[in-house]
Amino acid sequence: MKLWNVLAIIGILLFTQAGLADSPPVSTATQECLDCHGVFHPGIVGDWEKSRHGRTTPDEAMKIAGLSNKISATQIPNELKSHAVGCAECHTANPKTHKDTFEHNGYTVHVVVTPQDCATCHPTETKEYAGNLMANAYHNLASNEFYRALEKSITGTPDVQDSSLSIAAPTAHTKAETCYFCHGTPIEVTGMETRETDAGKLKFPLLSGWPNQGVGRINPDGSKGSCTACHTRHRFSMEMARKPHTCMGCHTGPDVPSYKVYSASKHGNIYASHEKEWDFNAVPWTVGKDFSAPSCATCHISLVVNTDGEPIAKRTHTMNDRLPWRIFGLIYAHPHPIDPDTSRIRNKDGLQLPTGFDGEIAAEYLIDKATQMKRQQTLQAICLSCHDSSWVSAHWSRFEHSIAQTNAVTKTATGIMQHIWKEGFATGPGKGGSPFDEAIENKWSDSWLFYANTVRFSAAMGGGGDYSVFANGYYQLSATLREMRDWYAFRKSWRESQAAQRAIPPALNRNASPAWNGSAR
Amino acid sequence: MKLWNVLAIIGILLFTQAGLADSPPVSTATQECLDCHGVFHPGIVGDWEKSRHGRTTPDEAMKIAGLSNKISATQIPNELKSHAVGCAECHTANPKTHKDTFEHNGYTVHVVVTPQDCATCHPTETKEYAGNLMANAYHNLASNEFYRALEKSITGTPDVQDSSLSIAAPTAHTKAETCYFCHGTPIEVTGMETRETDAGKLKFPLLSGWPNQGVGRINPDGSKGSCTACHTRHRFSMEMARKPHTCMGCHTGPDVPSYKVYSASKHGNIYASHEKEWDFNAVPWTVGKDFSAPSCATCHISLVVNTDGEPIAKRTHTMNDRLPWRIFGLIYAHPHPIDPDTSRIRNKDGLQLPTGFDGEIAAEYLIDKATQMKRQQTLQAICLSCHDSSWVSAHWSRFEHSIAQTNAVTKTATGIMQHIWKEGFATGPGKGGSPFDEAIENKWSDSWLFYANTVRFSAAMGGGGDYSVFANGYYQLSATLREMRDWYAFRKSWRESQAAQRAIPPALNRNASPAWNGSAR
Amino acid sequence: MKLWNVLAIIGILLFTQAGLADSPPVSTATQECLDCHGVFHPGIVGDWEKSRHGRTTPDEAMKIAGLSNKISATQIPNELKSHAVGCAECHTANPKTHKDTFEHNGYTVHVVVTPQDCATCHPTETKEYAGNLMANAYHNLASNEFYRALEKSITGTPDVQDSSLSIAAPTAHTKAETCYFCHGTPIEVTGMETRETDAGKLKFPLLSGWPNQGVGRINPDGSKGSCTACHTRHRFSMEMARKPHTCMGCHTGPDVPSYKVYSASKHGNIYASHEKEWDFNAVPWTVGKDFSAPSCATCHISLVVNTDGEPIAKRTHTMNDRLPWRIFGLIYAHPHPIDPDTSRIRNKDGLQLPTGFDGEIAAEYLIDKATQMKRQQTLQAICLSCHDSSWVSAHWSRFEHSIAQTNAVTKTATGIMQHIWKEGFATGPGKGGSPFDEAIENKWSDSWLFYANTVRFSAAMGGGGDYSVFANGYYQLSATLREMRDWYAFRKSWRESQAAQRAIPPALNRNASPAWNGSAR
Repeated sequence: MKLWNVLAIIGILLFTQAGLADSPPVSTATQECLDCHGVFHPGIVGDWEKSRHGRTTPDEAMKIAGLSNKISATQIPNELKSHAVGCAECHTANPKTHKDTFEHNGYTVHVVVTPQDCATCHPTETKEYAGNLMANAYHNLASNEFYRALEKSITGTPDVQDSSLSIAAPTAHTKAETCYFCHGTPIEVTGMETRETDAGKLKFPLLSGWPNQGVGRINPDGSKGSCTACHTRHRFSMEMARKPHTCMGCHTGPDVPSYKVYSASKHGNIYASHEKEWDFNAVPWTVGKDFSAPSCATCHISLVVNTDGEPIAKRTHTMNDRLPWRIFGLIYAHPHPIDPDTSRIRNKDGLQLPTGFDGEIAAEYLIDKATQMKRQQTLQAICLSCHDSSWVSAHWSRFEHSIAQTNAVTKTATGIMQHIWKEGFATGPGKGGSPFDEAIENKWSDSWLFYANTVRFSAAMGGGGDYSVFANGYYQLSATLREMRDWYAFRKSWRESQAAQRAIPPALNRNASPAWNGSAR
Repeated sequence: MKLWNVLAIIGILLFTQAGLADSPPVSTATQECLDCHGVFHPGIVGDWEKSRHGRTTPDEAMKIAGLSNKISATQIPNELKSHAVGCAECHTANPKTHKDTFEHNGYTVHVVVTPQDCATCHPTETKEYAGNLMANAYHNLASNEFYRALEKSITGTPDVQDSSLSIAAPTAHTKAETCYFCHGTPIEVTGMETRETDAGKLKFPLLSGWPNQGVGRINPDGSKGSCTACHTRHRFSMEMARKPHTCMGCHTGPDVPSYKVYSASKHGNIYASHEKEWDFNAVPWTVGKDFSAPSCATCHISLVVNTDGEPIAKRTHTMNDRLPWRIFGLIYAHPHPIDPDTSRIRNKDGLQLPTGFDGEIAAEYLIDKATQMKRQQTLQAICLSCHDSSWVSAHWSRFEHSIAQTNAVTKTATGIMQHIWKEGFATGPGKGGSPFDEAIENKWSDSWLFYANTVRFSAAMGGGGDYSVFANGYYQLSATLREMRDWYAFRKSWRESQAAQRAIPPALNRNASPAWNGSAR
Repeated sequence: MKLWNVLAIIGILLFTQAGLADSPPVSTATQECLDCHGVFHPGIVGDWEKSRHGRTTPDEAMKIAGLSNKISATQIPNELKSHAVGCAECHTANPKTHKDTFEHNGYTVHVVVTPQDCATCHPTETKEYAGNLMANAYHNLASNEFYRALEKSITGTPDVQDSSLSIAAPTAHTKAETCYFCHGTPIEVTGMETRETDAGKLKFPLLSGWPNQGVGRINPDGSKGSCTACHTRHRFSMEMARKPHTCMGCHTGPDVPSYKVYSASKHGNIYASHEKEWDFNAVPWTVGKDFSAPSCATCHISLVVNTDGEPIAKRTHTMNDRLPWRIFGLIYAHPHPIDPDTSRIRNKDGLQLPTGFDGEIAAEYLIDKATQMKRQQTLQAICLSCHDSSWVSAHWSRFEHSIAQTNAVTKTATGIMQHIWKEGFATGPGKGGSPFDEAIENKWSDSWLFYANTVRFSAAMGGGGDYSVFANGYYQLSATLREMRDWYAFRKSWRESQAAQRAIPPALNRNASPAWNGSAR
């Protein structure tokens, strides 16, 4: 018996090691990288070795035809074809366009690998991604006055004097750690420095805005975005990009509580309970075989097929293609923008907002009903893999009702805010003030940025009970509305009382102080 | 050597495929379903194929005797016995009692499979579940005036005029997306419609209140609840129902933060760290062998045995059987209701509440000490599988102390609220007002609905530090109490000042405005 | 073919059972324990059987030399060497120093196994742990007047009278369930009791402060802390201690939101997506081979080596060794304390705080720049396994900038609070009041305890966007500042108005009430 056991065990071990044994050759340049960095940076080298880049060659990848193909280039430079996609292949690509290129042990290396570099093998994905709101995430925030006012009110340095609270512009470091951590910032070469390293003295470029994993970072070669924001270096794993934790990095909430809502949904529940049985690396991705409930990527990005291998949804890295609505309300939910550069949008009042303060959409900048319908159908095709059409259309009706309902409540809250501004209890944009830098204004921003948004995400993903009600849902939305009205009504009453007091002849009212105008400025 | 490897690998593959090879025959009707729906709805068909329903027959299931038995029926119609429990077996059962039955390709099919359908094989579970608070979740909310006032204050459509904030009744869609998403709503057949499908024109019933996965939904056959709320269709997995993510769907918090508290508890920590080694499909479920820390189901539902196979806890789908206390305080924690229909409860003031506003319990509607003790012992038997009796009884003492302590703080908060109502700073139920529709009233509801509840759940499950203190625990509870008192004291002082001002002879006080009564109505 | 399959399967089964077959002998005493407790407490016995303690002997463990060694003792009593580390080995160790020792079926057993008991085999770890803030967690809270004032304001029993809100001291049970749940309390023997058990009448010691898993509990043998707080009994698993869920038990947030921030970081994302492939039991722990992203333990405790087996970080159970800063600000972030007994610290005003209210550090009690630099280098060595030095140093600059920035905002908030105290709108420590027992003071404590802290944890761990901004980050920090100023400005204005009213000759102002001083006391 013992012999058979040993043989069986050997069989098992050989079987599980099989993949590793198949590792392709690496280029001379990459081998030189690995010789040092394998010791200096074992974490990233270990990850790369397990990656598809480390386990196959472009030549092999290009042989895979049809829906299983994972490499959209039809032509790849010969010198890259027959070895693994290693350190040098990416970090020495396109040296001339990279301002961060430097001489490193005889190679022209750059620090920041960009979508333009990835495009050597993945041109379709690169192009698609560039048409995406996320690729423009830096510019869309930094070039929008309204958003910048919000940013300043949050991350600016406050200075309180007895009778005023002023806010200085946020520091570069604070920006990099906060809004632009996800949005990305420009990465610029500010000089060179010589550093003592384990391999002796070496010169490296100095980069500002680095580290940077922002989805819309501006790269040293001028390209936008970072593929590794989702396909985390140096594993570049499809599995990881398909798992919801990846999206969660930026969509934690309470502004965009996607992951939380997903976790509490039936889809998230099925994922949490059964994902260990699923195949997150299959291309195409077969519903009912490779997985049985969607993750974020399933609905928004992935190529999904049925068990006959027929496409249910085409792969897209322009996530907009499957998004009829923008439910992240700033201030209101609205049809998706046409142009991924949203800084061009102007509402009827000239603000860089897709709606007016009254909710009227800036229609010329937003997709029309027909485009919405087309995107809705693309998205619903995926729902229909598990649900019948009555389920799907009823779900969608409720979702759109939730958009309308939360927009209506937002309009009510905005109405109160506008009364407050009009009456001078706070200084709003109409009088040149920021709409976000007073206590009562933050109640207003809470109402749509957190609560109305959470209700919508919950409606979109079947997040159900708590995220629609008690966990930043309607409970908090309606309570905030009441708080705003309570504050407003009291301030009004207080002012009237002050006026009455002032009306008492000064001779009698000896200590009267000048009325305080109720503004928090 | 190579031959042995190949053989070993073949062995492994055959071994892991073994289950699939054993798939039982399906009925002709089910085969017809699968022929189309396998392509149209690969997700659910794939799940069903992996399910116990798809992998065994009632006949085989009935042969399993004793504690491993998973099918409580002693008699099953002959025509169901010898093939898999497939699409047709459930979706054509009891056609006459189903108002949603329709003709579909020669079969009388219904859309909504109900506990009454499941009772064909699982009568004990169905009966037990019906005796449960959850089965009555629709009625218990919809027929309770007090709860409905809370619901309206949250999900009603607000309308603000300068001096009033009124609330219109919630829309049907909003209800379905919020409170009733978990509680369930009635599902009604409102007509028939013809739809263009991949298989040509077909007629389907139109259902209101659909989709619906609420635990207390009212089904088209009059039955209550949904087995698939926990045993998610179409895998109907015991594993999933036993994993805590399933309960989390409805018990996310902050009102019932069960999952969060569990995650931070030692039990949750052991689960998160080691659950991959556990067997979530074993029946009975052996502590120390199949699992080493409880999930929600372990304590509240499952059949648990020791390593000698002796029962520690009997399976129950009447979760009440293991619940001495209702710690979800509306307003106070209290002994569990006797009747799962809680709308019949009246407190001493005639409100549909299990306690008075002063905390006095409506004793005749709640279980007595002896019943509490019996349930406590049932629950503690499970604790005693890992903990000695001194640990268990000390834990329980602390838990009951936390109930008393949080009830005391709730009484203090309610006392402040009652002063506010009495003084007319808000309009409470005593004067015909809603207790929930003013800003200050929401502070009060925060105090018990979120904070006192969270402390209790934390005490119950050893959720420890943060959920008892900083994460919606005593910190927020005591701070809210202070906020309420601060508001009250100031409003009182303000009113006195107003009165003093009015007392100044009108001739002098020329601009005096009518006093504003401080109410947020 | 069939024979080979059977043989292969047998091989597999024997292979997976191999470890169990190797179980070492157990002592006679332990066998006696197992005979009863195996039935009575199958959960903990099952866990122990799977544990390293149950699967090896000290003799075998001591044979493992070098970095793989898991047992720091160089000498172990002969009678313990050649059998498993079972029930009796730990629960009968050092009987004389244990006040909880009692006679149990012929053995002198104690209930609470302590670090002093673990030191038999793990003396280095025990000694290291004792030099840790966590080992002193009971004393550091209970002997600090400032912290106790915070504790009382949170967990004390409130009593509201019409014009005052007083707080009684927290009950022992409440303390055990709240702050001291994590910090630990003293465990004392208060007597003996006879209990009816499944094995007849038996006598047991009565323990106060039990159950107790606090990291700084005071044990019946006088030692401090609990190894099982992280190496949860009775698996005592390295895997569990290395997984982030374990730390989460106490570091849930919002005060110390380590786990949440980690989950949203790239490290947490890689962990969540790929941890199933990692080896959490390897000693030493090889980056790039056993794991590819750090968990809490990696950076703060574990022995980490590169793929050449060279140490990157030495194991330490004095977590301070890798902590240059204390970013859990009470009130400000500051260099780490020198002495793990922080109750000895006095700021310039004599308060037991590491900084003044103005942020000035109590330098003599805190580590100096050189020590900070040394610890920083220890920590950064781990970062450098995956990141280049420019990445690491830029990350660190931003982190230290976040410390400075959040300290600056905290100073602004504290400045407002001090104005409020000075003006008498609340009663602060300067006038003998608690700084935490009024509504406005809780806004102030929110600002640093939750929001400034969250920003710092996010900066430390790359938690990025939301935890720095919208999820208890700068958004809430700046909004709270504005709320505080709004409250202050209004109260001031209100007092001036009251004064003006009082100035009206009493003959005219007939109903004037005594001014309410605006304090919430």
